[in-house]
Amino acid sequence: MKPEIAKLGYISLVSADLEKSLVFFRDIIGLEETEEKDGVHYLRAWGDFQHHTLSIQQGDRGHVKHIGWRTKTKEDVAAFGKLLEEQGIAVDQVDAWKTPGIGESISFQVPSGHTFNLYFDVKRPPVDEHRRSVLKNQTYKSWAKGISPRRLDHVNLHTSAESSATYSFMEEVLGFKMREYLISDEGNVLAGWMSVTQLVHDVALVSRPETPTKARLHHISYWLDDSQDILRAADILREHHFEFVGPGKHAISQALYLYVTDPGSGCRVELFTGSYLIFEPDWQPVEWTESERSFGNTYWGDSISKKELVKETIEAL
Amino acid sequence: MKPEIAKLGYISLVSADLEKSLVFFRDIIGLEETEEKDGVHYLRAWGDFQHHTLSIQQGDRGHVKHIGWRTKTKEDVAAFGKLLEEQGIAVDQVDAWKTPGIGESISFQVPSGHTFNLYFDVKRPPVDEHRRSVLKNQTYKSWAKGISPRRLDHVNLHTSAESSATYSFMEEVLGFKMREYLISDEGNVLAGWMSVTQLVHDVALVSRPETPTKARLHHISYWLDDSQDILRAADILREHHFEFVGPGKHAISQALYLYVTDPGSGCRVELFTGSYLIFEPDWQPVEWTESERSFGNTYWGDSISKKELVKETIEAL
Amino acid sequence: MKPEIAKLGYISLVSADLEKSLVFFRDIIGLEETEEKDGVHYLRAWGDFQHHTLSIQQGDRGHVKHIGWRTKTKEDVAAFGKLLEEQGIAVDQVDAWKTPGIGESISFQVPSGHTFNLYFDVKRPPVDEHRRSVLKNQTYKSWAKGISPRRLDHVNLHTSAESSATYSFMEEVLGFKMREYLISDEGNVLAGWMSVTQLVHDVALVSRPETPTKARLHHISYWLDDSQDILRAADILREHHFEFVGPGKHAISQALYLYVTDPGSGCRVELFTGSYLIFEPDWQPVEWTESERSFGNTYWGDSISKKELVKETIEAL
Amino acid sequence: MKPEIAKLGYISLVSADLEKSLVFFRDIIGLEETEEKDGVHYLRAWGDFQHHTLSIQQGDRGHVKHIGWRTKTKEDVAAFGKLLEEQGIAVDQVDAWKTPGIGESISFQVPSGHTFNLYFDVKRPPVDEHRRSVLKNQTYKSWAKGISPRRLDHVNLHTSAESSATYSFMEEVLGFKMREYLISDEGNVLAGWMSVTQLVHDVALVSRPETPTKARLHHISYWLDDSQDILRAADILREHHFEFVGPGKHAISQALYLYVTDPGSGCRVELFTGSYLIFEPDWQPVEWTESERSFGNTYWGDSISKKELVKETIEAL
Repeated sequence: MKPEIAKLGYISLVSADLEKSLVFFRDIIGLEETEEKDGVHYLRAWGDFQHHTLSIQQGDRGHVKHIGWRTKTKEDVAAFGKLLEEQGIAVDQVDAWKTPGIGESISFQVPSGHTFNLYFDVKRPPVDEHRRSVLKNQTYKSWAKGISPRRLDHVNLHTSAESSATYSFMEEVLGFKMREYLISDEGNVLAGWMSVTQLVHDVALVSRPETPTKARLHHISYWLDDSQDILRAADILREHHFEFVGPGKHAISQALYLYVTDPGSGCRVELFTGSYLIFEPDWQPVEWTESERSFGNTYWGDSISKKELVKETIEAL
Repeated sequence: MKPEIAKLGYISLVSADLEKSLVFFRDIIGLEETEEKDGVHYLRAWGDFQHHTLSIQQGDRGHVKHIGWRTKTKEDVAAFGKLLEEQGIAVDQVDAWKTPGIGESISFQVPSGHTFNLYFDVKRPPVDEHRRSVLKNQTYKSWAKGISPRRLDHVNLHTSAESSATYSFMEEVLGFKMREYLISDEGNVLAGWMSVTQLVHDVALVSRPETPTKARLHHISYWLDDSQDILRAADILREHHFEFVGPGKHAISQALYLYVTDPGSGCRVELFTGSYLIFEPDWQPVEWTESERSFGNTYWGDSISKKELVKETIEAL
Repeated sequence: MKPEIAKLGYISLVSADLEKSLVFFRDIIGLEETEEKDGVHYLRAWGDFQHHTLSIQQGDRGHVKHIGWRTKTKEDVAAFGKLLEEQGIAVDQVDAWKTPGIGESISFQVPSGHTFNLYFDVKRPPVDEHRRSVLKNQTYKSWAKGISPRRLDHVNLHTSAESSATYSFMEEVLGFKMREYLISDEGNVLAGWMSVTQLVHDVALVSRPETPTKARLHHISYWLDDSQDILRAADILREHHFEFVGPGKHAISQALYLYVTDPGSGCRVELFTGSYLIFEPDWQPVEWTESERSFGNTYWGDSISKKELVKETIEAL
Repeated sequence: MKPEIAKLGYISLVSADLEKSLVFFRDIIGLEETEEKDGVHYLRAWGDFQHHTLSIQQGDRGHVKHIGWRTKTKEDVAAFGKLLEEQGIAVDQVDAWKTPGIGESISFQVPSGHTFNLYFDVKRPPVDEHRRSVLKNQTYKSWAKGISPRRLDHVNLHTSAESSATYSFMEEVLGFKMREYLISDEGNVLAGWMSVTQLVHDVALVSRPETPTKARLHHISYWLDDSQDILRAADILREHHFEFVGPGKHAISQALYLYVTDPGSGCRVELFTGSYLIFEPDWQPVEWTESERSFGNTYWGDSISKKELVKETIEAL
């Protein structure tokens, strides 16, 4: 039986200006800090159930170190290691708890050039009394500060790697299901929205042959429950002098979006709600042609197609 | 004592394609029809209390015939007539009920070139049982069809008339209070948001020396109660193949907006919510400089500054 | 390998007054009709992807005939048949397309007394041009009429059957995962919220030893995207003279709710949004004690604990 | 010409536990503090334009000292003084700036027993850079903390005074217009919703012959822009262990409500949105009969009619 990924776990981010990044993610976005260790800050949203969904540390330049994914079982970690080595992919073993909250894991580069970590074991730290939700099924009190999203949703990766091998690997080796995709007139996949969960995407992978380095990150995304939360986010961001793109609605994924960039790391955050869930076991991926790209990206609202602002990506290697 | 205007009453609109306009205003916007008489359709929103807030009839070209304003008292109609004639302005007497629901009125041209009708007496027709709200303080059931705004909010007029005389007339003769305004580096008012009510504006008047005819209409506006209603409106419009500008938020007036154009008349409709009320009797008009125009127009969201779409106006004479 | 259920499929409902039920579900709730065959009406929401999520037909009394569940693979249907027979449960084979849109299925009674149908094959009928969404990933235009929910969410079943055998069967034979549960001081499960999907529940099963017949239905639930949609639903329902319970928020599942009853069948519908998704593969079910039942049911808002209105259930056999 | 009141100004509140009240109003409700002087804290919402809309100080028991109303002109203050004395009502002159931000005023008791202060002159203190809105037409940044309402809306007063004289005084002497009212089968006004603005009510006055002292306060109300803001408020309140009534919708005034009580003073706060504006100069007050009282109070949602919680009032003298 093939090993399986259960969910997106966390993003390990390096910032060129840690203080700015912490103000952005803690005070403006409104994430909670689980702990700080060896200069790395571990953050999560009020409805995230694991140790952290984002880590940030100081570095020379803003970039993503790796992206963590939790497997379905403990055995899946080793099974993925074996499977990847059979594919000729170098796999590193990472000691348990080296990353706080994360047990034994394996680390490797996907063909798109991004580093993924796979793990199963996790620690769930207790929450301080004054920050803990009165709800047993919720981690922190909601609405404590800033925009206050519920949980990590997905990542959007760009790559200059050859398209078909990359998407095949994601589907065949890692088990992602293609949910929606954009196809060129020549029949190449230009972008794929893929998931192991019932979300439309845990990861979007965009083919960008022209990108300066192979593996890049376009954005990470946090989920909010209601459309109006996105409008409230816009107010909060403007009051703190942020530029952003949105609000608008994607046709692809049907999600309401707002994109804003962490001034410390250059990492873009998509505030995200709406969208739909896929329960059908035989889902037929929705195909969008090149001529539908603009409509697919912007069903209505402030357009992500036309803005220079959204073309920037940060390195993810 | 000076006569006073109480409120914006209605817009009398001519459409080059009446059928298209009726589909737009009745099915998409979701206005109710009070009555049809002599080919003129009288419409209003579910929370409008008067006979109609919009009339539409077939004509050669889309344009606004006149804009109706209700006075505070019956005596104010004649008093305004006298006052206007003292200003050298030609005043026509209009027979009561010539416009269904509207009593005796006077008609005249403001310096901006727009025709205003002033009236006090109104008829309030009974509402059909199946369309009547169960609420005693509400006219029709809400949410019966389409976007379903609550009530008429304001009009936005463009003019090539000389700026200072026009704004002075609005304030000194008609009693509008300037609430916010945009001023050129030379000290000319470029746009004024004015009201007789506690809204920021019942009328916005924009100085456009370059406009092809003197008196034009940029949009009429209907109010919705909640921000999400604007997002729902965007969904409804796209499903029916409409292009639009928005959603976005004005800095001036703090309102959430979406602009869409009636394909029959070319009349633009602003779907509008948020904003603020002015209760202070000594309100100091908020001044915005030319360099702040773009910020003033678009605090965030889909920009009205950059779109050709919103530059179009229809004749209002 | 054990067969698996992928998702809740549909509810087959019998109404004592079909006309009333159709007005309720089509005009007030705002479901679309896929087809009518042999006096049975097949309905679904604008975001449902399958043939129907609700069928209604005339009968002597309002009751649920059976509840359909789609399996993960075609082979799972037969595999479940075998598994159930091994458990000593009688299994009926149902011919393909006997129920429009639904292929070969098996029918059986779960220990709670409810009849479940398991199927995999489905037909996806084309949608009329004028009702079809402009979005490729959405079935119908949203907001066409009434409350307009997105999709079927879950069912809530009551039973007088012995508690522990019932919950064990759901988990061990059918593969439902317990997500949250309510436990008596004596250690009996009083209610369980269980899912095969990442929703908190596809089915809630409530132990009611005092219930007049063994298998009953408390409600079926349709999902709306935004909290405000529930408030808009309240307005629509009152304008049409419906009594209801809500809006309120459950602590268990964190969902915003409104309960209203179809006057034809007596079937209660929960309009539902908010809640959370479970991606953790080792989710620890959240336990609520008897003393927390009221808090668990009503975190805030119009209380379902105190209302006679919500105690009514209809037969489900 | 009769003097006129322009608007509700502020409530002067005494708390039995100042610290609790400050936590409630500053951190939970989210009001901003303009200044603290002589132990009195002056607060306002982010969209209030005047010095303060609420003052709180320590005292032996929670009660309202007086309610401030701003007049339309400076001359109106003296003119009201004269008018009141002609009615045989004792009028006190209050020195300018004795209450910070408030100029010369007069103080008197209305027949209902409540003390009103009338003033025109105000001071508008500058706002700290880091709390000031980037919007020129808004006082503070919105959404800085807690529930974050926009502005003071209205007060709801209870009295055991004889009904008809009380309502007559409010209308004839103070110039309030009756907008909606509840009438007993014997023809006595039981409650009146009255305004000098275009709101349905700046003050509601409820006749309660059984009340222990003559003049009492049921609630003060702050306005929020969107319905969802009320639901977010409910979440915030529960997370901080507050009991409350709502959300629900009044038929009278059409407003969405949530009632929560300051644990320091016992002063109830209504969080309020929706409702409608009255622009018609000849508005006919909407009459509700005794049998419609429950429907009038609770159109839907958590009922204010049935809850002991909302029967409590505090003294207002």
